[in-house]
Amino acid sequence: MNIQLALDRMAIEEAIGMAAAAEEYVDWLEVGTSLIKEFGMDSVRAMKKAFPNKVIVADMKTNDNAQYECRLCFEAGADIATVMGTSPLVTIEACIAEAEKRGKQMMIDLLHTTPAQQEMLSRYNAILCLHTSKDEQELGTKQNRETGLQAGLKRAVAGGITLESLPAYKKMNPLVFIIGSAITKAEDPARAAAAFKQQLNMEESK
Amino acid sequence: MNIQLALDRMAIEEAIGMAAAAEEYVDWLEVGTSLIKEFGMDSVRAMKKAFPNKVIVADMKTNDNAQYECRLCFEAGADIATVMGTSPLVTIEACIAEAEKRGKQMMIDLLHTTPAQQEMLSRYNAILCLHTSKDEQELGTKQNRETGLQAGLKRAVAGGITLESLPAYKKMNPLVFIIGSAITKAEDPARAAAAFKQQLNMEESK
Repeated sequence: MNIQLALDRMAIEEAIGMAAAAEEYVDWLEVGTSLIKEFGMDSVRAMKKAFPNKVIVADMKTNDNAQYECRLCFEAGADIATVMGTSPLVTIEACIAEAEKRGKQMMIDLLHTTPAQQEMLSRYNAILCLHTSKDEQELGTKQNRETGLQAGLKRAVAGGITLESLPAYKKMNPLVFIIGSAITKAEDPARAAAAFKQQLNMEESK
Repeated sequence: MNIQLALDRMAIEEAIGMAAAAEEYVDWLEVGTSLIKEFGMDSVRAMKKAFPNKVIVADMKTNDNAQYECRLCFEAGADIATVMGTSPLVTIEACIAEAEKRGKQMMIDLLHTTPAQQEMLSRYNAILCLHTSKDEQELGTKQNRETGLQAGLKRAVAGGITLESLPAYKKMNPLVFIIGSAITKAEDPARAAAAFKQQLNMEESK
């Protein structure tokens, strides 16, 4: 199981500093949508340059223009890109084709998809990300976690995961836990990241 | 009725040159999602600086993190920002609240929404954009244009509009026609923009 550190709502230099602090304890580094929209592909290029051996996830949240957007972020150094599960299937399929052509991977963000859509999306060769959005967390309407996902898939879980809620998410047996503010807003981000890593290891050794 | 020139898949300087060529014939200038994701808010700032008297639309395609993303683009000079109609309602509502607070407007992109979702979205104070996506146009599965939109709303229409298809879209009585490659990929973009403007005027004078 992997920890993906989500870097959002900060400057590129700050994101790199945060990633450096947590580097030892996290596996994947996510360039958040807010960084991409504020700074463009410079954010992805800077992250890959600073951490060439980490898996870089570009949270592109593609809704359209699949091939072009995938090309942008993969050429900037991303290893994984995200596409919205609410997009037309033709867009999701074009993303996956572009990723496969380049030896990269797609993550499908299941935000606000129905169980029926999730069942349909389960057939794709992609990581499927169950996601409670920032707005849902902060403004108070959490997504129903009942899913239409089939067993045996590569799953990601995201959205307000804390040390306290980690064990519940662990039961979903995800490939990757996406953790943002529980690390980046902690008083000591390195220590917070270490605590997540330790708790994951403990859970794994049980 | 307005023409919104959608600028996508090009460098910022090229977009400014294209907008300058078409300036006389178009009303709103759209900084496309591809420019935003490639160059960040520099794209919006440059467009507003070059065309301070035009309405600048930032095609943010927000799915989450509503307030932050709206703030980014409105502070960069956008007059209108887009949010995906497939997003959680809490996100759409937070976008509209942020826009209203700043005297700006939201456009809700109805891409891949159901008629039931469209009916629900009709109650918001926003421009509602019926949108056939690039991927749907290019990869061959056009969106069904049957809608759940109520009458009397501010509508936008987008997606592969040509001089030939303009009269059909006109029947929907939109506030704005979003036109991209029929102008930007034309041999003479200024002339293409002029032809759209003329055809709209002719239609209006009927």
